[in-house]
Formats: sequence, C-alpha cells, structure tokens
Amino acid sequence: MNMAKINVAIIGASGYSGEELIRLLMRHRGVCLKVITSRQYDGQGVEEVFPRFASSGLKFSAPDVERIAAECDVAFLALPHGLASEYALPLLDKGVKVIDISADFRLRSTAKYKQYYKEEHPSPEVLKRAVYGLPELYREQLKTADLIACAGCYPTSSILPTAPILAAGLAETNDIIVSSMSGVSGAGRKVALPYIFPECNESLKAYSPTGHRHLPEIEQEMAVAAGIEELAINFVPHLVPVNRGINSTVLLKAAAGCTLENIAATYEKAYGNEPFVRVLEHGKTSDTKYVTMTNVCEISYTLDAHTGRIILTSTIDNLTKGASGQAIQNMNIRFGLEETEGLL
Amino acid sequence: MNMAKINVAIIGASGYSGEELIRLLMRHRGVCLKVITSRQYDGQGVEEVFPRFASSGLKFSAPDVERIAAECDVAFLALPHGLASEYALPLLDKGVKVIDISADFRLRSTAKYKQYYKEEHPSPEVLKRAVYGLPELYREQLKTADLIACAGCYPTSSILPTAPILAAGLAETNDIIVSSMSGVSGAGRKVALPYIFPECNESLKAYSPTGHRHLPEIEQEMAVAAGIEELAINFVPHLVPVNRGINSTVLLKAAAGCTLENIAATYEKAYGNEPFVRVLEHGKTSDTKYVTMTNVCEISYTLDAHTGRIILTSTIDNLTKGASGQAIQNMNIRFGLEETEGLL
Amino acid sequence: MNMAKINVAIIGASGYSGEELIRLLMRHRGVCLKVITSRQYDGQGVEEVFPRFASSGLKFSAPDVERIAAECDVAFLALPHGLASEYALPLLDKGVKVIDISADFRLRSTAKYKQYYKEEHPSPEVLKRAVYGLPELYREQLKTADLIACAGCYPTSSILPTAPILAAGLAETNDIIVSSMSGVSGAGRKVALPYIFPECNESLKAYSPTGHRHLPEIEQEMAVAAGIEELAINFVPHLVPVNRGINSTVLLKAAAGCTLENIAATYEKAYGNEPFVRVLEHGKTSDTKYVTMTNVCEISYTLDAHTGRIILTSTIDNLTKGASGQAIQNMNIRFGLEETEGLL
Amino acid sequence: MNMAKINVAIIGASGYSGEELIRLLMRHRGVCLKVITSRQYDGQGVEEVFPRFASSGLKFSAPDVERIAAECDVAFLALPHGLASEYALPLLDKGVKVIDISADFRLRSTAKYKQYYKEEHPSPEVLKRAVYGLPELYREQLKTADLIACAGCYPTSSILPTAPILAAGLAETNDIIVSSMSGVSGAGRKVALPYIFPECNESLKAYSPTGHRHLPEIEQEMAVAAGIEELAINFVPHLVPVNRGINSTVLLKAAAGCTLENIAATYEKAYGNEPFVRVLEHGKTSDTKYVTMTNVCEISYTLDAHTGRIILTSTIDNLTKGASGQAIQNMNIRFGLEETEGLL
Repeated sequence: MNMAKINVAIIGASGYSGEELIRLLMRHRGVCLKVITSRQYDGQGVEEVFPRFASSGLKFSAPDVERIAAECDVAFLALPHGLASEYALPLLDKGVKVIDISADFRLRSTAKYKQYYKEEHPSPEVLKRAVYGLPELYREQLKTADLIACAGCYPTSSILPTAPILAAGLAETNDIIVSSMSGVSGAGRKVALPYIFPECNESLKAYSPTGHRHLPEIEQEMAVAAGIEELAINFVPHLVPVNRGINSTVLLKAAAGCTLENIAATYEKAYGNEPFVRVLEHGKTSDTKYVTMTNVCEISYTLDAHTGRIILTSTIDNLTKGASGQAIQNMNIRFGLEETEGLL
Repeated sequence: MNMAKINVAIIGASGYSGEELIRLLMRHRGVCLKVITSRQYDGQGVEEVFPRFASSGLKFSAPDVERIAAECDVAFLALPHGLASEYALPLLDKGVKVIDISADFRLRSTAKYKQYYKEEHPSPEVLKRAVYGLPELYREQLKTADLIACAGCYPTSSILPTAPILAAGLAETNDIIVSSMSGVSGAGRKVALPYIFPECNESLKAYSPTGHRHLPEIEQEMAVAAGIEELAINFVPHLVPVNRGINSTVLLKAAAGCTLENIAATYEKAYGNEPFVRVLEHGKTSDTKYVTMTNVCEISYTLDAHTGRIILTSTIDNLTKGASGQAIQNMNIRFGLEETEGLL
Repeated sequence: MNMAKINVAIIGASGYSGEELIRLLMRHRGVCLKVITSRQYDGQGVEEVFPRFASSGLKFSAPDVERIAAECDVAFLALPHGLASEYALPLLDKGVKVIDISADFRLRSTAKYKQYYKEEHPSPEVLKRAVYGLPELYREQLKTADLIACAGCYPTSSILPTAPILAAGLAETNDIIVSSMSGVSGAGRKVALPYIFPECNESLKAYSPTGHRHLPEIEQEMAVAAGIEELAINFVPHLVPVNRGINSTVLLKAAAGCTLENIAATYEKAYGNEPFVRVLEHGKTSDTKYVTMTNVCEISYTLDAHTGRIILTSTIDNLTKGASGQAIQNMNIRFGLEETEGLL
Repeated sequence: MNMAKINVAIIGASGYSGEELIRLLMRHRGVCLKVITSRQYDGQGVEEVFPRFASSGLKFSAPDVERIAAECDVAFLALPHGLASEYALPLLDKGVKVIDISADFRLRSTAKYKQYYKEEHPSPEVLKRAVYGLPELYREQLKTADLIACAGCYPTSSILPTAPILAAGLAETNDIIVSSMSGVSGAGRKVALPYIFPECNESLKAYSPTGHRHLPEIEQEMAVAAGIEELAINFVPHLVPVNRGINSTVLLKAAAGCTLENIAATYEKAYGNEPFVRVLEHGKTSDTKYVTMTNVCEISYTLDAHTGRIILTSTIDNLTKGASGQAIQNMNIRFGLEETEGLL
C-alpha cells in the first residue's frame, strides 16, 4: 500500500467501542491513528486504561475540533447518542469525514427518534446527509458519504439475515419476530448495579421486550428491504453472561412457494461475494464463538414445515461487526481502500 | 410431622437430576432416602461423586427392583429416556409408586413419540396410567396417580406462562412462538465435546430450531389448555453459558379484547394461590438468577400494542422446577404431604 | 423446637451478606426475622431488591436502634467497617446481642487497625468485649459473648486449615504463605468499574499482594494458634470470575518429624466432630463447587518431600462460612440452639 | 517482505494449540501454511472444526512425513507428549526444522522425564539437539536450532518473571513458591468429565499440588538462571473458569540488599527491549485480560518488607505466549524474520 496514510481521530476512545477501534486501527496498514480523545483521561497514556496498547505510545486528549480538523481526514465518534451530534456538524463543516457509531443519525424519521429516545433530534439538518453504515446494503452510497451512521449491533445482526429474504419476497412482512441475546459489553463500559459481575453472571433475562431503541432502526431497514413504507416487528433482547457476541433468532412467515432452495439461492446471490458474511450450509447453526473478535456475521437458516415459518439465526461480535469493525469497513469503502484491510 | 416417613429410592442418582433430588430430599422432613442407584458407582459412597453430601452416609448400589419394592414406597426415575420404561412396569407391579423425570411417559401419542424420539414407544400399555406431572395444571389427578410423568424443563417454562392465557381465550392458538435459553446442566452430566468448558463459555447458539424433542410435549399441553385437539408452535432453544436456569420468551397473538388487565386477572385467578409460581407486576421482567436453586417459576408479561402480540417471559431452575423439585412437589401431592415440604 | 423464638434484626440487609442472612434465617426454625434495615430501600418490600424472597412479606426500614432494642434479642450488623461501630454500643447498652460481620471488632490491636484501615479505631472501649467469631476455635467463649466479631472470609479460609497444624507444632511459624482466590461477591455489592462483568469475566489478577486488610487478622489468629506473640506471613489474594467461593492454598515449612500421619491425626482430633469442617482424605483436593451455598469449609492436605513443605488447600463459600452462615452458627452457639440449625 | 515464503506444516492441528497456530499463521506475511494434519478429520475442510477459518480453504490430512518433507521447511508439532518424538527424528533427518509444542524435548534429564512422565524418554538421542524455546533466554541458540522445544505454559509464566531476579542474585534459591491459575483451554481440547462446563464453571480448585509435570521444567530453567546445578521449588497450579490465561504469583526470599530499585533496574536490563515482555510500573498488578489473544507476558513486582519476600505476578495467554505464539516467535528467530511478524 503505497498511498499516503489516512489520518484518523477517535472521539470518545475510552469505552469498549473505542478500545475495539484502537485495537483494529493499530494493525490497519492504511491509516495513521493521530488523535484519541477522552475528557476523563485527558493527558494520560492509553496504557492507563488499556494496558494491552502500551506499546502504541498513544495519549488521550480532550476533544478539540480545531486540532482534529487540522490533523485528520476522518473522525470516528464513539460517543453516547445525543453527544455525537455536537461533533458531527463542526467536523463536517471543516471537511472531516465523520463515521458515527452512536444512534444519532441512523433513524431517518425525527419523529421516531423522539418517540424512542424521548427527546428532540439534536440536529435534523445534518441527518439528511447521513448514509446508513451497513456495507452489504449501502456500499455504493457509502463510497461518497461524508457522514456515515454505522448500523447498531442488534440491527446488524437482525437485518443481515432478514433483508435478502424480504427483498426476494420469500416472507410475509407483517409477521416478523426477532429474539436476540447480547453479551454485557453491549451495554458499554457502564458502571451500574445491573452490570456488576455477580448480578450478570448466572443470570438470563429479557429486557425492553417492547420499545427497545433499536426497534425502529430494525423496522426502518427491513421495510426498505421489503420495498414498503413501514412494517412493525417484535424485537425482544436478552442480556446473557458473555463478554462479547450477539445471537439473533429471526422467525418469518414463509411466503407461498418459499423453499429451502430459494433461501439458499437468495443468500448466495446476496452474500456469495461478501467478505464478512458467512452463510452456513443448511443443518448447521451459527455460534457467537466462531465470530467473536472478527468482523464476520454468520447466518444459518431453516424452514419449519409444520408452522410454515422460516427460522434464521445470526451471530456477530457486537463490538466488531456490531460497531467498530463495521465502522472501519465503512471507512475502507469511503476512502477506496481494500474493504477488508485491518479486519482479517 | 408425626406420620411415618415415606421410603424413597432414586434410580439413576449420579447425574445432575439425581444430585438435585438428593440435595432436596436430604432436607425433606417427610421422607427417608433409602436407596440411591448407579451402576457406574455401585458400592461407592455418595461423597465419591458428590462431596457435598459426605455427611449423609448414603451409598450407591446397582438398581435392584426387588430390593426397592421391599424397602420403598416410591421410586424416582432419573434415567435417560427409553431406560425409564424398563423400571416403571416392574415397580408398579410390585406396588411402588413411580415418579419419572425422563420423557418416556409425557407424550400421550405413541406416534408423536416415534416421530420425535426415532423409536417405538417402549411400553405403550403403561403409558395410559401416567399422569402429566405439572402440579399447577394436574393437581387433582396427581393425588391418585401411580405413575407420574414429570413435565420437562423447557415444557414447564413454556406451558406455565402460556396455559392460563390460552385457557382464557386471550390469545390465538395458531401463532405461538417460544424462544428459550438453557444453562448447560440441561444437557445432563454429558461428557461430549460440545459441552466442555472452552466450547460453551463465551458461546451463544441456537440448536434444534425445528423438531426438538420437547416440542410435541409443549404442543400437547398448550392444546389441552386451549381446549383444542392440536396446535403447532415454533420452539427454538439456545444453549448459553450458565450452569442452571431456563429463560423462555413466549410470543402470542392477542385475541380481540385482550388487555393488560385481562392478563393480570387471568394470572391472578390461575396462580394467585400457587406456592411456586410468581407473576411479576407489569413492567418487571423475570431473571433466572432469582429462581435458581428454588422451585419457583417466575413469570412476566406485557402487551405490544404496535404488533398486537402478548410477550411473556418465564424463568425456572431447570434442575429444580424443571426436574427434581417438581418431582418432589408431585410426590408431596401424591402422598398427601404439605406441597411445599422440602422445597422452601 | 418448642422454645420461644429468638427475635432477630439485620442492619444493612441490602448487600450480599444481608441477602445471605435473609436466605438462611428464613428457613431457621428458631428465629423470627423481625427487622431488616436499609436506608436506601426504606419502606420498600424485600422483593424490590431480592425477588426471590417475595413470599416473606419482609419490608426494609431505616435502622432504628430503639425499635430494634424493643423488638429484638440479637442484631446482625452487615455494614461496611467503621459504620458497624456506630450501632454496636447503643445496641449492647440496651441489652441486644450483636453479631458483627464487618471488620470493626476482629483485630485486638487498635494499632494494627489504624495501620491497615488508615483511621483510628472507632470504639476501642467496645473492642474489649468482642469475641472472635470462629466457632471451631472460640466455641466456649462464644457461648457467653455479647459482641461477636465474625471472622472474615479470607481469614476463615486460611485459619481453619492452618491453626491445628500450628497448634500441634507441625510447622514453622516464620515461613507461611497464603495464596487465595475469591469470587466477585467478596467485594460486596459494589458498583465500580473493576467489578462490572466485562472487566471481571475472563480476567485473573492478584490484588493487594502486600498489606491486604485481612492480613493482620490472619496473622493474629495464626499467632494465637501457634501460642506465640506475633508472626508475619505472606497473603496474596486474587480476584477470579465466579460469583461465590474462596479457595486458599497455604504453604507451611514442615517442622522436624512432621508426617502425613501426624497431619491426618491432628485434623481428626481438631475437626473430627465439627459439623462444618470436612477434611478430605489424602490425595483429594478441595473445590469451591462442593461448598458453595453451604456452611462447610473443605480442607485438603499434602506434604511435599522435595521441599519439606506442607501444602494445604481450603474452600468455603465466602458469603456463607465466610460471612452470614458463620454468623448464624455463632448465634446458634450463643443462644444455646442446635449449632447446625438453619445451616444444613 | 520480498523473500520467498517459508512453507509450514502443523502436525496435530485440530486441538486448541493447533487452532491458535492456524489463527496466527493465517496473518503471518512470511509463511505459507501448506499442510495441517489430523487423523480424526482427515479429508475434511478446516471449517468443519473451526468455522472461523472457513475462508482459508485449508483441509486436514493424515500426517505424512514424506509429503511434509517434500513441501515444507518447518513443522510445528502440536501433539500430546510421547507422540511428538515419533515425528521429530524422521522430519529432522529429511531436513525439516521442527518446532515442538509438546513436553518431549524440554527436560534435559531423561531421569526427570521418567520420574514425572512415568515412562522412558522416547528418543534420548534427539533430545541433545533440542534448544529450549524461550526466546527471552535462549535467543542466540534458537537462531541455529533445528529442533526447538517450546517452553510450556506454566513454565513460561513462571520463568520469565523469576529468571532475571535469580540471575542478578536478588533472591535466595532455596525458597521459591509458584502459585498459578490456568484457564480450562490449558487442559487441551480434552473431553472428560472434569472439563465439562457445569463442572468447571463456578469452581476453583488446586490440582497436582506436588509433582506436576511442569515442575521439573520450571526448576531446570530457574537453576540455569541462578547459575546452580539444581534447585527445588513448590509449584501449585489451580484450575479456574476462564477460557484462556495463566496468572502466576511467585514468592521469593529477597537476598540481602535487594530493593525495589534493584528489581526495577534488573527487569529494565533484561526486558527493556523485549517486544513481548511488559513489566508494569511498581504498584500495578498484571491481569490476564490485558494479555489474552496476544503474545505478551505482563509482569508486576513488589517487595514485602514485613516478610522479606519479593512478590512477582505474571500473566500470559496460555495458548499464545504459552504455546503457539511463542512457537511462531521461535520460528521467526530461527528463520531470520522480524521476531514480531504475525504476532502484533
């Protein structure tokens, strides 16, 4: 790779998504990681928070848009929702590409944003410039996007197995159920009673069985795939005691004429050349342990004759394909790099 | 408790269900644990396998129907399916009550047995004498049963939240989905590659997404509850890295007129006096960590206006309410003891 | 048990030791659990914090010494160190027996208290009335104690295997090493970054390799056992990803003439009749999984010919024998109840 | 890297060390992975066992020395001890370099081999050609070695923190204690009752507290470091519920004049330029979570004034620095590649 390196900033680098970005970008041959920000750890070496990166020589600094604009081509926002918006416009105005891992620019509808996030959308005018950061569905648009709203973790794991099936008309659009399990890093590096070890270990529980914030995002993209205006699904997430990984089980009502062969062919067409989607042969089921620490989404499928339902399962690493790995994949696409660079 | 103690045998006592039976029966004030059998550990003290029971003085012996008939009033069968049948008839013939934890006598239909267990039912003539061992639904019949077929673990966790809703006509019967997660002890004390620690830990996976052996049992009892001949559901179990616990999420299509108040009232009527069912107030969700090592089934419910689905979750300890605790509850009912004896 | 029940209060009942006290006292036939206090949950039902105790009808109240004195015979203090002292004297003055699970009254030396806890001892005058709450070593004194300072978790696991060996002169007193591992509940229900699930899971680390607060307590009691004024040991605790359990490995320099037979005979004499100490036959090693949720300390021993060291291992449940179970054992002794009541 | 690639075989590639070798070699820019052998999976694609390597196109074959000699420059032996010897000599005879991960060539003394492995050494004549594969101590010899006996996992974690201290005369050589904890992958991909999930999870136990097979290896290399003929230590390993990682705590009696500054300077001199040893500043302690999936050994140290002992802790990933990563580091040294290639 002889071209000049891309200069990169990570804003909000002390959480788990930030850690994963650092891990992946340190071995990426096309970038130079110039700035990592954290208000809390301003001035401290990265090794104070992440000893495994001791050899990098990186230091946290407080976020400084001027400096980032002066030094960087692209900024990853690994911030809580609401906060990301504050950085997006100033950076875009100064010509920095923005790849946002938060939820701020994923929903096209500001009404839905308000309904699910309980506040007005912080910058609706910027929202229009965002491209949804799910490369398998939006690769072309991503090539020229200035603001990329990376798909959420549950959405990535739900949409990837489902979208081609809906697009091919193999399933009904009014009877979709997603039941997901997530490891605890999905909650971020959050210090709260429900997340301490003795509360999570040996615990299995559903949460937000209605109205989870990722629900409208999943519905939005499933509707796009199905070519309809709107659809409504059930999405029930569960918290389970692993560090990393999401397993989603999707149940769909098969449309007339749907067969295992149709499904297999549909996936082959959709994902046969995708570097980060692995569709298992019929009869195998996906397992998070085969995708953790990778950018792969593993998909399995079957058809239940006795109820007429298609059953899909998918597994991803919530921090990689579900967040930081996908963000880098998006960056690679945007900057014309090999899409898999830094991710194999 | 001044009555004479009931003399008890456990056949197949060296697995996890056997261990749980021993644990619970050791503190039960109405029984005397006379015989625990294991071919593999014949002649060894119980502490060779379960050091925590060292003080009991119990010894494993090879199973001997004559001896058990001579010494015991009741025998628990904690054996693999197929094998339980071999002991049931001889014991019944000699007047010993049989409480079977295996799957041999749960399905009323021998055709379904063959379909799902891939072999002819081993003793169809005995099958007719069996009562399904789920006390909340079959308490009256259990009082006089000689052969009790204890409900399976996934079935207990699925049927308890669902049966009252179906019985009350609050949900459709043709659109039922159960997505469950089980701890690894649910596979028994099985020594096989998929169950070694590094394969299970940090792993989340579905298995048997169609055709799991507990499926026809769940369907049978849901149909009974709904008052119809047959129904077909989707049941997708998942293996997750905890020792104990099952979490089932059940999705039902609400019937016309179903409200949160209906559901609450229905549960109150069904379970208001049940010692081992805890229905949470609306807005809370069940968690396995609040039921492990207990005989309780914890249930939560909600109604999703935007899809018209009822969402139920339930949690049990697969070895207690899902197996050995329930077996003892059944015994207490059959022998006229306090139903909660040994289980609080 | 026909005698009047003992009325009991738990002060600071919303942590893990409090939860374990409630769990055990609910099945104790000789007590009535009258008061459970928590400032944070004042007025709320116990099920708001611990759903598994929903059936108890217990309610948290703010701590009120007058009320406790009026209603209770004994109060368990499950409070952070420093705070326990504030309650001890007022309660004792009003005739309530006090069983303290904190560290406030364990060290006889106020100088050591200051050295390790970095503050003056909060009530040195009360300290003199305290009896160290390790029943296997202090049973006689406990029978008449008004203030019982329950042994700490690491100390219980270290002292029980070691004390008889030192008392019998089988080991040197100047070459003692304790290397322990503790589950995360040992840190209490503490909400802090190092204790959230993703930080603890898949993590093994030593902490406080010198100067841990339990060190002087272990040294104090080992010196008593050895019949000398003082001794100094190394104690290195480690944090490991289990909920419950402490495993301590103790290395001692064997004194001249020490043999495996001596050790076995010494343990038999010391613990042959102890209900809660299980010394394994030579060749087996203790495992926390055989003692969790029990009040047992399991001990194993061997002698390494090639270095001349005795190697002891012990396992306890840090919340039971290491805290609340032992506290109840102490109460049983103090009130003349069966020592094992509520603990089997 | 323009030089011709090194052709590599892995013999015994279906275990956890084999999996880790494949993972690391797939991203190594200087090698071509030509042959992976497994009798059990002969003819099957690598994805049948390790789905995460699906894209590699690799296939297992039965081991065939002729073919390996024809196609490969170097063979990694990831076989059980005893078996490795059968391949070493034939491969060496045909000019293939051998990097052995088993224990067959680590002990210089065949007497010790017999004492600890309970059988005669399988090929004492080959043993003399072996160089001990711990790069930080044997880098020069490794550059020309034809047979490399990679250091074991516990030995690597014990020797690295200890050797410089002994070599500098900062500690006594007759009072050394190593207490280690290992994740379950350290037992290999072994299907046996003690390793199934419910037996390991929530379990902490010591095993082989005397006479573990890694003991003589640790003693051999500590003696070399100390410049003496022989020494005897205590080594107590523990099995704990993590997938990967070893934490070793080493206690040494400080020699006269030993200070924290001496220790720090000694480590700086020994490891200041080592790419895979990270000595933490005084006051921090190592944690396996900062080294898993890396080839780093993290070391911390302190000095306990009140007993005169040096306390060292070290953490490694048992499959990386403790096995396959170190094997590749050794290969890089032997073939004149960048030592860190494939390992960052």
